[in-house]
Amino acid sequence: MSIKVKWLNKVKWDEYGLVPVIAQELGSNDVLMFAWMNRDALERTVELGEAVYWSRSRKKLWHKGEESGHTQKVHDIRLDCDEDVVLLKVEQTGNIACHTGRHSCFFQKFEGTVGDGEWVSVDPVLVDPASIYK
Amino acid sequence: MSIKVKWLNKVKWDEYGLVPVIAQELGSNDVLMFAWMNRDALERTVELGEAVYWSRSRKKLWHKGEESGHTQKVHDIRLDCDEDVVLLKVEQTGNIACHTGRHSCFFQKFEGTVGDGEWVSVDPVLVDPASIYK
Repeated sequence: MSIKVKWLNKVKWDEYGLVPVIAQELGSNDVLMFAWMNRDALERTVELGEAVYWSRSRKKLWHKGEESGHTQKVHDIRLDCDEDVVLLKVEQTGNIACHTGRHSCFFQKFEGTVGDGEWVSVDPVLVDPASIYK
Repeated sequence: MSIKVKWLNKVKWDEYGLVPVIAQELGSNDVLMFAWMNRDALERTVELGEAVYWSRSRKKLWHKGEESGHTQKVHDIRLDCDEDVVLLKVEQTGNIACHTGRHSCFFQKFEGTVGDGEWVSVDPVLVDPASIYK
């Protein structure tokens, strides 16, 4: 079915048939997470109005929030100038996008210098992950 | 030299030695562009305080703005929970990140439905690219 969908053909899928996807929060504009989609995932995202990614580790479609309940309602889908990256504007259910129970996956901040640097966790855990994934 | 830099070892470089990078504008939080870095690029970014990417097409380090003048001053560097994606918070010189002369590379918006959708350019060209790249 996907083959007939012209707008999907405009996306430059990589050698694995995937495209990088950035999920950004509507309103705050916070970058919540980064994932991948294949054609089916992007098609399903449009159909459903919620983010559906391709899980590279599990090799299957991943309806974000299917386990945690932290679904992402999609308000806007953008494609970049090279047509090989997708940006979603989403409403994040539960205010938590990260499997660690944080708002955003990007909670490790570089501090220091080239010769003496480290990654420091700077954002709080809002919900114990053990209570998210039962 | 890079091999000695411990914080660089925490990053999970992909099979090509690269990591995806999202550049987000300080203040507005707009997502400006997406690119890739190798170890040298990330090291150089920290040293310089300006974004240095790895150009996959030209196969060399790419100091963003080296031709256009549209450099990116780096204020914050984040790593995600899986340690395989980097997020930069940058101050965008000239207010233009995209080679098309637009503020952001994500100017094509999906409109329509699965069966009848299209990508529509919705953001203005601020500067004629011909005047940027002489």
